[in-house]
Amino acid sequence: MLNMSEIIYKKREGMALTAEEIKFFISGYVDGSIPDYQAAALLMAIFFKGLNREETFQLTEAMRYSGDTIDLSTIKGVKVDKHSTGGVGDKTTLIVAPIAAAAGIPIAKMSGRGLGFTGGTVDKMESIPNFRTSLEPEEFLNQVNKVGMAVIGQTAHITPADKKIYALRDVTQTVDNFGLIASSIMSKKLAAGSDAIVLDVKVGDGAFMENLENAQILANLMVDIGTDAGRRTVAAITEMGQPLGKAVGNALEVIEAIETLKGNGPEDITELAIQLSGLMIYLGGKADSHEKGIEIAKDVLTSGKALEKLKSFIKAQGGDEKVVEDYSIFPTAKHNLKLLAEETGYVAQIQAKTIGLASQHTGAGRATKEAEIDLSAGIYLHKKVGDFVKEGEVLAEFFGNDMAKLENGMKEARKAFTIVKEEVERPVLIKKIIGL
Amino acid sequence: MLNMSEIIYKKREGMALTAEEIKFFISGYVDGSIPDYQAAALLMAIFFKGLNREETFQLTEAMRYSGDTIDLSTIKGVKVDKHSTGGVGDKTTLIVAPIAAAAGIPIAKMSGRGLGFTGGTVDKMESIPNFRTSLEPEEFLNQVNKVGMAVIGQTAHITPADKKIYALRDVTQTVDNFGLIASSIMSKKLAAGSDAIVLDVKVGDGAFMENLENAQILANLMVDIGTDAGRRTVAAITEMGQPLGKAVGNALEVIEAIETLKGNGPEDITELAIQLSGLMIYLGGKADSHEKGIEIAKDVLTSGKALEKLKSFIKAQGGDEKVVEDYSIFPTAKHNLKLLAEETGYVAQIQAKTIGLASQHTGAGRATKEAEIDLSAGIYLHKKVGDFVKEGEVLAEFFGNDMAKLENGMKEARKAFTIVKEEVERPVLIKKIIGL
Repeated sequence: MLNMSEIIYKKREGMALTAEEIKFFISGYVDGSIPDYQAAALLMAIFFKGLNREETFQLTEAMRYSGDTIDLSTIKGVKVDKHSTGGVGDKTTLIVAPIAAAAGIPIAKMSGRGLGFTGGTVDKMESIPNFRTSLEPEEFLNQVNKVGMAVIGQTAHITPADKKIYALRDVTQTVDNFGLIASSIMSKKLAAGSDAIVLDVKVGDGAFMENLENAQILANLMVDIGTDAGRRTVAAITEMGQPLGKAVGNALEVIEAIETLKGNGPEDITELAIQLSGLMIYLGGKADSHEKGIEIAKDVLTSGKALEKLKSFIKAQGGDEKVVEDYSIFPTAKHNLKLLAEETGYVAQIQAKTIGLASQHTGAGRATKEAEIDLSAGIYLHKKVGDFVKEGEVLAEFFGNDMAKLENGMKEARKAFTIVKEEVERPVLIKKIIGL
Repeated sequence: MLNMSEIIYKKREGMALTAEEIKFFISGYVDGSIPDYQAAALLMAIFFKGLNREETFQLTEAMRYSGDTIDLSTIKGVKVDKHSTGGVGDKTTLIVAPIAAAAGIPIAKMSGRGLGFTGGTVDKMESIPNFRTSLEPEEFLNQVNKVGMAVIGQTAHITPADKKIYALRDVTQTVDNFGLIASSIMSKKLAAGSDAIVLDVKVGDGAFMENLENAQILANLMVDIGTDAGRRTVAAITEMGQPLGKAVGNALEVIEAIETLKGNGPEDITELAIQLSGLMIYLGGKADSHEKGIEIAKDVLTSGKALEKLKSFIKAQGGDEKVVEDYSIFPTAKHNLKLLAEETGYVAQIQAKTIGLASQHTGAGRATKEAEIDLSAGIYLHKKVGDFVKEGEVLAEFFGNDMAKLENGMKEARKAFTIVKEEVERPVLIKKIIGL
C-alpha cells in the first residue's frame, strides 16, 4: 500500500521514486485524496533533490494521462508540433506553421493564451475578425486533412494534473526546477498527439532560462523525455536577449508574421522561422536533413505558397482572410507615441524583459488571468541591436487606446535601450540544436 | 509589505529570515491567512537549509507568544521547570519534582498527555483515584505557594502555533530538523513561565535522538534558546537504550516513583532523579554547585521529606494520598503473564523502543489521540542490562485487562532481549551535561 508520507520521505532523502509512486502522487493529487500541503512538501523536496531521467519521464507520463489525450491517427502523414518556451515578440508559430504545412507537414496544433507580456498565439489569432480558436474535435481533424493545418486553444481537459501542480508551484517557490519545468511542457506536448516535436528553447534576459548552460540542461531534458516517449524530438536554443522581430503586441505581431511570409520580415524572425520550419520538414520526413528542410522552407516562402497556406487556414477557421492584404481590418489603436533616441550611436541592448513589461503596460498583455487584452496595443521597434541611430530618430513606437497606459509603457521602455559609440555585433540567433 | 512567497524563496536560497519575517509567518499561519501548502513548502526548505541561532530563537519567541503565556510572578522564589525529550519508562517528573520541592524549589509544572508507548505524566497521575490534573490558574499558583509544587495538564491556549505547525510537520516529513524540534520544545517551556529550565535529552534506541552527536546538537540548541531568552538553562544527555527503571505503564510507573522516593527504586532511575533534581536545586539557587545540589537531593530523599512532599501534593490536587502506603488503591490488572529466559547468560540489550511498543500493545499507551488508556496495564522488567539470568527465570511480567493484548505485547517484547555468555557492563546513565 503506497503512502504519500513515505514518498515525501524517500525524495527528501534523495532516493529515486518508482513509476508507481509517481502515479500514486499524480492521481491522488488530481482526485483530491492527497492534500496541497503534502504535494507542496514533495515539490520542495524535488526542488532540492531533483528527479533523474526515469523519474522525469514517469512524471511526464503520469501528467500526460491525467486527462484527455488527443488522437491524431485519422490525420495522414507525420504530424509535427512546435513549442516555444516563450519570449517577447515571439510570433513564430504564425510563420512556421504555414511554411511547414505548405511543405506537406500536417500541423494539428493546440496553443495557449498568454499571461504577462503579450497574449499567446490564441490571443494573437483573435485579432483577425471572426477567427474561431475553438473547434469541435472532428472539425479540427478534418481541417488538418483538408487544409493542412489547424491551430486551436487548449481544451480544458488536457493534463489537469499539470494545471493543478503548476498553480501550486507558482505559490510555493517550486517553479525553478528543470525536471518540473520539462515534465510540465512535455506532458502537454505528448497529450497533444503529434508524432514529432520541435522545441524552441529561448535563452536570455526575456526568457525563463537566462543563460546558455541552463537552456541546454532544459533542452536536453525535454529531448530525453520525448525520446523516451517514442517521439522524435529536437530542441533549438535561440536568442531572447532582445525581442524577436520588431513587433510586440497582438495585431502588430500578426501583421509582422504576414509580412514575413511575404518576404518583408525582419531579419531575425525570418531566419528563425526558416531554421525551425526546416527542422519540422526534416522531422516530418519531407527532407533528408535539416539543411534540405531549410531549402524547402525557403522555396515555399519565396514562392508565396506559405502565404497562400496562411490564407486558407484563416478562412477555414472562419476568419476574414482579406486581412492578409488589408491590415486596416485589424483592430487599430487610437493613439500612438514615439520614443526618440537621446544620443547618436549603436544600439547595444534592448532588454526583452523590460520591453515585455512595457508592452503589458500599453494594454497588450494580461497581468491576471481575467484581464482583457487590447489587441491593437503594443510596441514597434524601429531599431534593433547592432543598428546605428541618430539623436532624435525614432527608436520605438507605442500603440494603444489608453493614452495614460501608453505614456506609462513608453516610460518603462526607455530603460530597455543602451546606445554606445562603438559598433556592436548582432547577437547569434541559433545557439545550438540538440537531438539532431 | 511582507509576503510569504518571498519568505519561502529566501529560505530556499539559504538566506536567514528576519525576526519580522518569522513573526509574519507564525501569526499568518495561526490566523489562517497563510495556507498549509505555503507553510509546508517553507518547512521543507528549512529542513534542507536549516535555521541559524538567531532564527531559531525568533521562531521560538514567535510560537511562545502565539497564545497564552503563564505568569508565575506571584510565586515566591526561583521557579525551575524540567523537561524530558521522552523515552520508555520515564517517570522522572514524579520523583524529581517532590525532591526539588522538598529542597525549597517552587515547582509550577505543566505536563503533557502521551501518544505512543505509555501515557504522559498527566495520564500517569490520573491512575491515582480522584487526582485532578486540571486546576484553575489561581488554584495552581496558590498551591505552589502553599505546598511547593503543582503539576497540571497543558491548557489549550498555550503555543497554538506550535500545535498547528507540529501537526503539519507530522504529515510532511519535516519533523526531523534540529531547529524545528528545539523551538517547538522551548516555545512551550518559555510560555510556561519558569525562571530556569533543566532539560533531559534522551539518547538511544528508545529516544528521538538515536546517537550522542545528534543529542548534543539538540541540547546545545535548546540551551542557546533558553539563554537567549534570559532563562538559565541546562541540558543533561541521558541513556535511553533500555527502558528507564523497571516499570513501563501508568499505575506501575507511579508505584515505582513512590518506591524510589522510599529509597527502594531501581539504581538507574534513582541515580537520574538525584542528578536532575541536583541540577534543579542548583539552578534554583538553593545550592552553590551541581554537586551541592546532589547532596541536598540525597538528604531530602533519605530523610523522607521528598516522599512527604509527594503526599501533600497528591492531597492538594484532590488525590487519595493513601496510595503512597497502599498500592491496592491503584487500578489493578486482571491478568498477568511472565516472559521467561530461554537461555542462561547476561542481559546485553533490552531495546527500549520494542518494549515501548509492547507496552502499547498491553493497553498502556495510545495509538491515536482518541484512544483510551488501560491505566493498570504495562510491563515490569525483572532484569536490566548487565544482570545475570538463568534459563527459565522471569525476564519480564506483563499486566493488563485483555489477555489477547497481553499475549500480543509479550510476543513483541521477546524480541527486545539479547542474552550473551560474557559479562556485560551497565550503560553510562549521564552522558554529558551542557550549559553548566
